[in-house]
Amino acid sequence: ALAAPALAQGMPEVRWRCASSFPKSLDTIYGAGDHVAKRVAALTEGRFQIRMFAAGELVPGLAVADAVQAGTVECAHTASYYFVGKDPTFAFDGAMPFGFNMRQMNAWLQAGGGRDLLRDFFAGYNLVSLPAGNTGAQMGGWFRKEVRTPDDLKGLKFRIGGFAGNVLQKLGVVPQQIAGGDIYPSLEKGTIDAAEWVGPYDDEKLGLNRVAPFYYYPGWWEGSLNLSFYVSKPQWDALPPLYKEVLESACRDSTVETMAKYDVQNPQALRRMVAAGSQLRAFPREVLQACYRAAFELYDETAARNPNFKRVYEPWKAFRETQYQWFRVAENTFDNFSYFMHAQEQQQRR
Amino acid sequence: ALAAPALAQGMPEVRWRCASSFPKSLDTIYGAGDHVAKRVAALTEGRFQIRMFAAGELVPGLAVADAVQAGTVECAHTASYYFVGKDPTFAFDGAMPFGFNMRQMNAWLQAGGGRDLLRDFFAGYNLVSLPAGNTGAQMGGWFRKEVRTPDDLKGLKFRIGGFAGNVLQKLGVVPQQIAGGDIYPSLEKGTIDAAEWVGPYDDEKLGLNRVAPFYYYPGWWEGSLNLSFYVSKPQWDALPPLYKEVLESACRDSTVETMAKYDVQNPQALRRMVAAGSQLRAFPREVLQACYRAAFELYDETAARNPNFKRVYEPWKAFRETQYQWFRVAENTFDNFSYFMHAQEQQQRR
Repeated sequence: ALAAPALAQGMPEVRWRCASSFPKSLDTIYGAGDHVAKRVAALTEGRFQIRMFAAGELVPGLAVADAVQAGTVECAHTASYYFVGKDPTFAFDGAMPFGFNMRQMNAWLQAGGGRDLLRDFFAGYNLVSLPAGNTGAQMGGWFRKEVRTPDDLKGLKFRIGGFAGNVLQKLGVVPQQIAGGDIYPSLEKGTIDAAEWVGPYDDEKLGLNRVAPFYYYPGWWEGSLNLSFYVSKPQWDALPPLYKEVLESACRDSTVETMAKYDVQNPQALRRMVAAGSQLRAFPREVLQACYRAAFELYDETAARNPNFKRVYEPWKAFRETQYQWFRVAENTFDNFSYFMHAQEQQQRR
Repeated sequence: ALAAPALAQGMPEVRWRCASSFPKSLDTIYGAGDHVAKRVAALTEGRFQIRMFAAGELVPGLAVADAVQAGTVECAHTASYYFVGKDPTFAFDGAMPFGFNMRQMNAWLQAGGGRDLLRDFFAGYNLVSLPAGNTGAQMGGWFRKEVRTPDDLKGLKFRIGGFAGNVLQKLGVVPQQIAGGDIYPSLEKGTIDAAEWVGPYDDEKLGLNRVAPFYYYPGWWEGSLNLSFYVSKPQWDALPPLYKEVLESACRDSTVETMAKYDVQNPQALRRMVAAGSQLRAFPREVLQACYRAAFELYDETAARNPNFKRVYEPWKAFRETQYQWFRVAENTFDNFSYFMHAQEQQQRR
């Protein structure tokens, strides 16, 4: 084929390195960062290039924020709640237990003041955080035994990410921080009793269905997970205005693309795993309610001693209130009726 | 401020005119097209410019597809179901009654084969259609009298857009095609009995709450409405590859931005209208079921005589099946529990 004439010759060459928190094998979540890099190249005819490195290639997956802060890499693609050990305020940028679904998260970040609220917080870490990808509502993970009452959580060794581990600690869970690639052997050996990762498509790739029979839902700690593209603040400030626009567009593009891919691939993976014997279980309402109470207790306690957290929590909670009021009306009623009819049709076919 | 150095000097100037189907006063839905124009300019430092024209400025709002097809304008921003009179297959690109919510629509179009399926269909009209904006689940509209049973639909003069009018005709409704700006006087005078437009924010702008007391939900004919950016196919084909990428990015950006704006503004508008006396009503399940049966009857009849429709309908229906199966699990359970707890909290506060 003939090469198209280069239109972007006058544009400066910028070459960045991006450290992903995810392994390449997870083509959706690693792919969300990779999609940003691809779109940036496509919009500049390759004058602005971001080279991706999978977790562990340059720095460990959970050390990418430090690497950007220190200037080791110009940028990273990650989930902000990995850094709640530094400050729980990070969780607002990723997922808060019993927080937002994907639409609500997007509304908060893009038009509801969320990004403005978080900008100063991130500046304190020398970071600019751009929303770049979303997983939607996640699954509750893989359990070796059933969870029937809140008591069944006591002493449970559960691999769980983010702020949710602190919520579950209140109910007696012993949360485990384990990187994606190490979950399978831990669950297989019984070093842990349960593990959550993302949802059907990614969980199947890790093989978790082969080492625990019960697949719980919903992942109430991640009604959606916003993925974040971190840029070193000095690098961001030095970027030509056009390239800032390009990067913003590429990140929003990744949110559309990643969510669509998950929604296409998750149903197929779930069907495969259920056909192969995985047993779907909903968390009992009593368990969810205990977790819900523990979550908001933790938020109130955290807000009382952490002014960063409090500054975001109060408007976040007010926004959540208005979102829930509205989504209960048209969206949820449409969804519920659709799924009711679908369930009826399934029964009639049997 | 100092002007940033122009990086895009080597890029050709392209100037297009875009005919919107919407009035400027509706800043969300007209704004979705305008956002495309703004992003295209931002990503090319103004070398690629799209000038927006509101409905009626160059061509009537419902004539924009013809205008692009004829080459009167290079592009248009619209809702594809306006053109079901040409061929009902257009509806798949906008909204099908009892079809997809926003996430499902995005999944179908972007990663589920939807755009591929529709490409040939649009090429027959000399059009390329890019998804650009979404309204989410719409409301069911404003009624002068309550709707208690399917019988209450008989003889009802209802302003309703798109394919849904044909569904409702089966139940005795007399559907009315009325442009946005003319709905208010028709409903005020009682020329019509009911009218649907979009949702709280846009409906309040048209003043519909002032001329009918009952505000129904959900708008089952629009579980989401995908807005479309139509490009004349010869113009698209002649566009430099870089500008095609720019336009694709700008359109996806508009989907993120528009959905976020609607989700921020709809709750506030709904609260204002309810505080001012509007009465929220859910369509009774019996009514929804009658409409559901009529919709799928119509689809089957249409598929039997229209090969364009049939070619899209069958994979669309199969995709809907997998989406409903998956969304019933994590997403819907998360949403339902969240709204259940929220309703409980509201009651406790009273």
